[in-house]
Formats: sequence, structure tokens, C-alpha cells
Amino acid sequence: MARERRVFTGRLIRTFRQVRPALQLIIGGISVLILLAALLERLVEPAVFTSFGLSLWWAVVTVATVGYGDVVPVSPVGRSVAIVVMLFGMAWVPTVTTLVVTALTRSPEEDDVRHAALTQKLDEVSARLERLEQSRGGD
Amino acid sequence: MARERRVFTGRLIRTFRQVRPALQLIIGGISVLILLAALLERLVEPAVFTSFGLSLWWAVVTVATVGYGDVVPVSPVGRSVAIVVMLFGMAWVPTVTTLVVTALTRSPEEDDVRHAALTQKLDEVSARLERLEQSRGGD
Amino acid sequence: MARERRVFTGRLIRTFRQVRPALQLIIGGISVLILLAALLERLVEPAVFTSFGLSLWWAVVTVATVGYGDVVPVSPVGRSVAIVVMLFGMAWVPTVTTLVVTALTRSPEEDDVRHAALTQKLDEVSARLERLEQSRGGD
Amino acid sequence: MARERRVFTGRLIRTFRQVRPALQLIIGGISVLILLAALLERLVEPAVFTSFGLSLWWAVVTVATVGYGDVVPVSPVGRSVAIVVMLFGMAWVPTVTTLVVTALTRSPEEDDVRHAALTQKLDEVSARLERLEQSRGGD
Repeated sequence: MARERRVFTGRLIRTFRQVRPALQLIIGGISVLILLAALLERLVEPAVFTSFGLSLWWAVVTVATVGYGDVVPVSPVGRSVAIVVMLFGMAWVPTVTTLVVTALTRSPEEDDVRHAALTQKLDEVSARLERLEQSRGGD
Repeated sequence: MARERRVFTGRLIRTFRQVRPALQLIIGGISVLILLAALLERLVEPAVFTSFGLSLWWAVVTVATVGYGDVVPVSPVGRSVAIVVMLFGMAWVPTVTTLVVTALTRSPEEDDVRHAALTQKLDEVSARLERLEQSRGGD
Repeated sequence: MARERRVFTGRLIRTFRQVRPALQLIIGGISVLILLAALLERLVEPAVFTSFGLSLWWAVVTVATVGYGDVVPVSPVGRSVAIVVMLFGMAWVPTVTTLVVTALTRSPEEDDVRHAALTQKLDEVSARLERLEQSRGGD
Repeated sequence: MARERRVFTGRLIRTFRQVRPALQLIIGGISVLILLAALLERLVEPAVFTSFGLSLWWAVVTVATVGYGDVVPVSPVGRSVAIVVMLFGMAWVPTVTTLVVTALTRSPEEDDVRHAALTQKLDEVSARLERLEQSRGGD
């Protein structure tokens, strides 16, 4: 039991190592999006987003889909920026899941190659046996 | 390492290509739902949803499960429409994940066919060997 | 291409059919939870939850993690009920994903059985060949 | 049909048993985070978080990404604590999904070992057959 758990933990660590570059890209992308959205909202709606700190706070609350509602854009342009941030928040979970599942599973293409290799080897064995039988029949 | 990452990226791109038609259907369906819900709320509760733009803003905030609470339906009919939008927001992540996992994994049925094919080939080899042994015994 | 898409769609339909009983259980459970939570809040905090309809509206908004904040419990008992509803909302997505992935993948145990079966068949073939070689050597 | 469902249920139970220690760690970690964040907010913003109970309520509402907005930190330090809680809420679903998928799927490394074992056995059979053919040729 303790050994099985160690193997399981080892696989988790290896998977995270493989997923890391893609994960860094996604986290980096969301960070840039948050900074950009905060900057845009500060410029577009200075009356609501009275400081860059408040803009940043709003962007994180939005991308995490928490949405307290303490700061909310009211102009069409400000809301359009907010919609982009929300869509990224929505896409976050399935994207990360996709990454991990892709890293964890053997690709169907690789399975095809392996199955073909085993089939070919078995066909060779069969052909050899047929030759043996025929040479016996010809005794 | 760099080559492994290239292979991983290639698989991601291929998976997204396979999932694309289904993903387009889901995104298209959510877009239609958002437009329809926005239109319905505008008609049912004109006092709260004072413009179609505000209705649209509310629908996106709801389907993304952000829920600022700056615009909220108050009538039973308006709330019923909102509940449908929320349920779609809830279903979004597991549905997309299902799609991707289905695209990524070889189906158990295909595995069955392959296992059966290998087993049959091995049985043929075994039968051939048995005939060879018997013909030797009959020398 | 069109044929591949048909196969993919067929697998999706089959998976949903297999997952359906478990999914119905989860959806049924959440429905009962929503009704129960709405009833409890109506009884515990009649000042906030002024009607059963409003209680229901709050429960759906909470389990979907939308959280508009238009109706919020304020008493310790009312908040404890709300926390249970939130935890179910949080658990929803990973639970459904688990169900689907379990339905889609062949179990490692089945893979073990198949690998063992192929190995055994190959060992028999090898043993037969060894007997053949030895009988030749004994000519 | 009834039997298939029983097998499916059995697999679900086994998977949850395997995932349990990791799940307990994650749930334990989130519980500690909620307690710690509630304590910190109570100390940092006593004007908003007027009791430890209210602090706890806010932490659960935030980590579940419900975000009613009835209690919201307003100071930079209080908001920084909140951001950490939100990020954990965001990471919750993909992390649990990763755990389950890792527990459910056979690792590619194990598949490699199995494929290599079958290939080696087939190569041995082939080599034996070649020796048999050559010894016949030498009759």
C-alpha cells in the first residue's frame, strides 16, 4: 500500500514536470491579460476604476469568476474588456485539464504503431511456420 | 527534451483540430443562448434590463458564473430564464472536458478488436505448431 | 473526415448513455439539496428569504457558483446551510469529469488481465518450439 | 446491463479509494487556507471583518468562487490575502481532475515495459524458428 502510494506520487510529479512549460505559458498569458485589462479599464473608466490597484483587484476577481460586484465597469467599452477577461476565466479549467490528460495518456497514434509492430512480428512467425510445414510436406 | 516538447505540442494541436467541430457547436449554442436570454429578459423585465446592451452584459456575466450582481432579474419569469443560463454555465466545463477526453483516448471497443486480433493470430501459430508436433510424432 | 466525425459522435453518444444513471443520481441529488436548502433557509431566516420562490432562486444562484449577492443569509445557521450548498457546487465539476473519464477508459485491471493472457499464449508457443527443437536434437 | 453498471460502480469506488489520501491532503490544505485567511483578514481589516465568523463566511464564499459581495476586503493587504484564496479556488478543479485521471490511467511507462516484454518474447520465438529452419536445411 505504502509503495503503491509512492509510485502514484512519482507519476504525479512527472506529469506536472511535463505539463510545466505549457502551464507556465497559460499562467503567463493570464497574468498579461490581467495587467492589460486592468490598464485598459483604468484608462477607459477612470470614474469607476479610481486607481490601478483597484483595476488589478477587479481583474483578478473577474478572471477567477468570483465576481464580488464591488467594482463593475458601466461603459460599453469597459464591459467589452470585462467580457474578454470572463471568457478567459471560463476557458481556464478545460484548458488545463486538456493539457494534463494529453500529458498522461499515450497517443492513439503511438498505440497504432505498436499494434502494427506486434501484428507484423506475428505474421512473420506464421509465415516461417508455413514454410516449415511445406518443407515437411515435401519430404 | 526539446523534441519531446515538440511532439507534445503536436498532439495538442491535433486534438484541438479533432475537437473543433464539436467545440464550435457548443460555443455557437452558448452564443445563441446568450442572445435569446438577453432578448427575453429585455422583454420580460424592461424595468431592470433597461437596454439590450445591459441584457447582453448580464447574460455573459451569468453564463461565465461571475455574477457581479449589478443587474439581477426580480420577476419569476425573468429568474426562470436566468436559471437556464446558469445551468448552461455549470455544464460548460464538464462538457468541454468530456469532448477532449473522448478525442484523446482510444475507445475500449477498438482495444477489444485489437486484443481479439492478436489473440487469434497467436492461436493460429499455436495450432500450426501442434500440427507440426503431431506430424513429427507420426514419423 | 466525415466518417471520422461520425465515429467520434457515436462514441460521445455511447459514453453519455453509460454515464447517464450516475449523472441522473448526481443531478437528482443536487435537486433535492436545492429544495432542502431553500426550505431550511425559508424557515431559519424568514426575514431575508421572504418567500419559498426567493429561497429557491438563492439556492440555484449559489450551487451554480454565480453568487449575485441579491439575497444572502446573515445568521450563523443560515450561513452553515449555504456553505453545504457551495461545497456541492464546488464538487460538481470534478465529480462529473471523474464519471466520464471512468466510463471512457479501460480499467488498468482489465489491461493486466489482457497482458497476462497474451504473455501466457506466447510462453506456450515458446515451450512448444523448445520441445520441437529437443525432439529434433534427439533424432 | 445491470452487471455492467455494477462493474462501473466498483471501479468508481476503487478509484476514489486510491485518490483518497491525495484528496484528503488537498481538502486539508484548503481548510487550513480558509482558517488562515479568515484569521488574517480579521486582524488586517477589523472594520470590515467584524467577527471571526464573518471572516470564515467570506473565506468559504471566496474559495468556492461564489463571491456574493456582502463582505469584501478594501485594503491592499486584505485584497492580497483574498487574491491568494481566489487562486486556490481557481486551481481546485483542475487539480482534483488531474489526481483522478492519474489514478485511472495506466502510465505510459508501464505500457512501454509491457510492449517491450511482448516484443522480446516474439523475437525469441522468431529466433527459435530460424534455428529450426536452418537445422532442417542442414539435414
